[in-house]
Amino acid sequence: MERLAHTKVSKASKAEPTCVRVENVLIGGGAFTVIAGPCAMESAEQVLTTARAVEASGAKILRGSIFKPRTSPYSFQGIGREGVDLIKLVKQETNLLIETEILLAQHLDFLASEVDILRIGSRNMDNFELLKTVGETGMPVILKRNMSATLKEFLLAAEYLLDAGNENVILCERGIRTFETYTRNTLDLMAVPALKELTHLPVIIDPSHGTGRRSLIAPASQGALAVGADGLLIEVHPNPQQAKSDGDQSLNLTEFERLMSQLKASAEVYGKTL
Amino acid sequence: MERLAHTKVSKASKAEPTCVRVENVLIGGGAFTVIAGPCAMESAEQVLTTARAVEASGAKILRGSIFKPRTSPYSFQGIGREGVDLIKLVKQETNLLIETEILLAQHLDFLASEVDILRIGSRNMDNFELLKTVGETGMPVILKRNMSATLKEFLLAAEYLLDAGNENVILCERGIRTFETYTRNTLDLMAVPALKELTHLPVIIDPSHGTGRRSLIAPASQGALAVGADGLLIEVHPNPQQAKSDGDQSLNLTEFERLMSQLKASAEVYGKTL
Amino acid sequence: MERLAHTKVSKASKAEPTCVRVENVLIGGGAFTVIAGPCAMESAEQVLTTARAVEASGAKILRGSIFKPRTSPYSFQGIGREGVDLIKLVKQETNLLIETEILLAQHLDFLASEVDILRIGSRNMDNFELLKTVGETGMPVILKRNMSATLKEFLLAAEYLLDAGNENVILCERGIRTFETYTRNTLDLMAVPALKELTHLPVIIDPSHGTGRRSLIAPASQGALAVGADGLLIEVHPNPQQAKSDGDQSLNLTEFERLMSQLKASAEVYGKTL
Amino acid sequence: MERLAHTKVSKASKAEPTCVRVENVLIGGGAFTVIAGPCAMESAEQVLTTARAVEASGAKILRGSIFKPRTSPYSFQGIGREGVDLIKLVKQETNLLIETEILLAQHLDFLASEVDILRIGSRNMDNFELLKTVGETGMPVILKRNMSATLKEFLLAAEYLLDAGNENVILCERGIRTFETYTRNTLDLMAVPALKELTHLPVIIDPSHGTGRRSLIAPASQGALAVGADGLLIEVHPNPQQAKSDGDQSLNLTEFERLMSQLKASAEVYGKTL
Repeated sequence: MERLAHTKVSKASKAEPTCVRVENVLIGGGAFTVIAGPCAMESAEQVLTTARAVEASGAKILRGSIFKPRTSPYSFQGIGREGVDLIKLVKQETNLLIETEILLAQHLDFLASEVDILRIGSRNMDNFELLKTVGETGMPVILKRNMSATLKEFLLAAEYLLDAGNENVILCERGIRTFETYTRNTLDLMAVPALKELTHLPVIIDPSHGTGRRSLIAPASQGALAVGADGLLIEVHPNPQQAKSDGDQSLNLTEFERLMSQLKASAEVYGKTL
Repeated sequence: MERLAHTKVSKASKAEPTCVRVENVLIGGGAFTVIAGPCAMESAEQVLTTARAVEASGAKILRGSIFKPRTSPYSFQGIGREGVDLIKLVKQETNLLIETEILLAQHLDFLASEVDILRIGSRNMDNFELLKTVGETGMPVILKRNMSATLKEFLLAAEYLLDAGNENVILCERGIRTFETYTRNTLDLMAVPALKELTHLPVIIDPSHGTGRRSLIAPASQGALAVGADGLLIEVHPNPQQAKSDGDQSLNLTEFERLMSQLKASAEVYGKTL
Repeated sequence: MERLAHTKVSKASKAEPTCVRVENVLIGGGAFTVIAGPCAMESAEQVLTTARAVEASGAKILRGSIFKPRTSPYSFQGIGREGVDLIKLVKQETNLLIETEILLAQHLDFLASEVDILRIGSRNMDNFELLKTVGETGMPVILKRNMSATLKEFLLAAEYLLDAGNENVILCERGIRTFETYTRNTLDLMAVPALKELTHLPVIIDPSHGTGRRSLIAPASQGALAVGADGLLIEVHPNPQQAKSDGDQSLNLTEFERLMSQLKASAEVYGKTL
Repeated sequence: MERLAHTKVSKASKAEPTCVRVENVLIGGGAFTVIAGPCAMESAEQVLTTARAVEASGAKILRGSIFKPRTSPYSFQGIGREGVDLIKLVKQETNLLIETEILLAQHLDFLASEVDILRIGSRNMDNFELLKTVGETGMPVILKRNMSATLKEFLLAAEYLLDAGNENVILCERGIRTFETYTRNTLDLMAVPALKELTHLPVIIDPSHGTGRRSLIAPASQGALAVGADGLLIEVHPNPQQAKSDGDQSLNLTEFERLMSQLKASAEVYGKTL
């Protein structure tokens, strides 16, 4: 781990754990912050229904992509720029903050003013040019671990953000690639305490991509809390069976409400507030 | 997962979760059972000191190998058959049950009468001849997952035990092999809820081999509890720095006592008794 | 492999294997084409020395990056845009074609007119926005496999290029990520015949990144020829010990000359021309 | 690789490459030795038909298991001890040497006198007790790499054989476990030259298990020759579609004959005799 010496992400470089503040919401520092919403924003009805439900269940931040990087060029690629109107609608109708994925530096033109947290997806963790540009904005950013990145590589990717002047960085573990086929990925829950030994940045877990199976989202979320994560990024959809992407790993609104209750019960044991 | 159809390990084959009873100790069925002790039994003093301490901290079963499968023929191979005297000593001086690894069918001659739980190590998960023989004894047995076995392969290995007539089988996840190098293995905590979807057998976690780092044993143990594991298999040594094997992943007696207190506090939230 | 049905990359979609023509050089169709040169262009002297030597040894295309994606922001990032002058110099002084990596769509402004073949690196295989833009140029392009991409994912990434109208696509296997640590990556030579069962596109091998060890480049290159590859992408440097990047996996000029002689001898057996 | 220092397998310990002589057949030292035959011996007719055909095609050693380690207890486990009669029959009717897998030390009682080469399968590479016993016999032995063993671990397993006094050890790479699903395993052809840098022992390739696909056996075999392997272990069956195990990765008799012709043509280029 020598190459982490003298980096801005390293624990040695900063006495206090970093706590990212987004308006009145904290990520890190004793909070357990749940970011929830659809994989992809599809329509005003789908987005608003989900937004109101996750807000009612206690989430403070809505996730929702309008641009989707997909393995096949023939899969749904997101609704694109017109999705900005949906983002505006949510902000008008609820008190939720908005988190969305950024694929291209040029999209900052219309995303920066509407969105509260940018997400850099797993496939772009190594897109260092994008990292540099997002780093320069100083905006809160969730950096997802590439599915085959070592912890050191993950942290050095984050260093591109910090080195460009952005300290509002949240790391997100979302499953790594192994030989196992029962789950979509192998969710590396132990990456949380391991990262906490190496860096001062907050770390959250994506139990949806991490498992690829709805039935495993609740235990993965409980596990995340127990190993010391600072929050979750969960896919929630009013009707997962009809989602245009990732339906198999999205909770429906009732399931999400139940999970939030369960997490509130256990958060206290771990000294976290939800 | 088709090939699990009609197996004795499959959830479909048995309505109730299996709870393995070893004298007055249960594994499965609401208990969170901690098995703790040295990687290898080294001397009467080392074994007794550890045994008394783990018993005082609340463990009911002592782990301790007298035969060690080692990557190199020049590494410490265990004290061998004379270790049976140490096992007898522990049973005389404490109320602990004894768990130890079996490497060869012929060792049953002297292990079967002295030991309460047999362990089949990761490297022998695929040693089907050993599985058949241990299966025929009907003795409680911990089967550790091979470091590159899929969940299906793990369960089919367990099927060799059940098919030979042994229902007292406890599955143990102990880390899988991935590209990550910060930890010795990647502990697959999510294997616990995944296995619970497929089988009625109890599942425990080995946080020592799973991480290879003393500092990660406590969060791994908390994570195990939160994802639904039925217990732990932990390495504890009075003086880890001087252990003949696995010192880097053994707790000392004080650390183990602290972990047990922490686990008692959180077990209640998950409806488990410790 | 169902999702490859009806794709433009699939073998079913085209009766003849694709042969990419770049001026008078062919990649595919019975040729075994060697692309060689420094990991990074550093100076006029380094580039010209290498270019003349690889040309003398029989290579027709020079590799050389002027922008380098690096794991750490503090590693050498390439000489940047001024490297275009070095490219011009090589074209003036030799008959070599030029292959270089493209990191950003905007760089097409000055790369498209000077370079003969674009390379999309492993870390950008999933950068679908970049793929779309490069696809639209129609320029010959080498697409490197991401170190954790399945063959299907690799082909679907190539589909972004073909779907944007570009048929001049060369696939490049460059090592996948596994548990092995002796080599930098595990070079998946068998990906060549496996890909040939699935697609009509030519496939080349990068023995430098694939192994990370100079001593293994020659056997890897012979293996590539024997399993049916259409060529190689090799790192060559006049003084590997002083290279600013990847020196450990670069041949020096004499080693490259020797390798070319050996490959000429064996190419005939496999019905390839070099 | 420090732990290989002072081992008997290490290249440093022996000036000359080891050449294992089994009667008049050599493995290592310039020979390219093909061992071929059915995955499992099933009947006199199947075994004799295969034996005569592979002998006619130029193979000198017949492979054939009578005991099979299988992932599921309900899969065909081999014909067992009565298979010894089939081995005797082959020796009576042909000039072939016999190679077979050993699963249990006790089987040496009847295998040692009838068989020429013992095979320790991938699943038993870590069965150190079996290694010690086979090591003591001094019999020629093929040690297959465990599907998740590093090269160092593989060599340390071989060290158990050498340390017990057996120098007649042949290493066999047979595919490692990765995330790829198109092939059964990822055949690590580069393990051959890598092992040759570390050890004096001969190395052969199993293209059947390594790929799991009949269509890839020929390119894998050519690749093995080109990277410097000392031979092959191939599954051949008179009627692969009806084989009781591994039919998908077995050549039929005609395919094997064609492969042998092709290998003879290319062996010369690499200075090998077949």
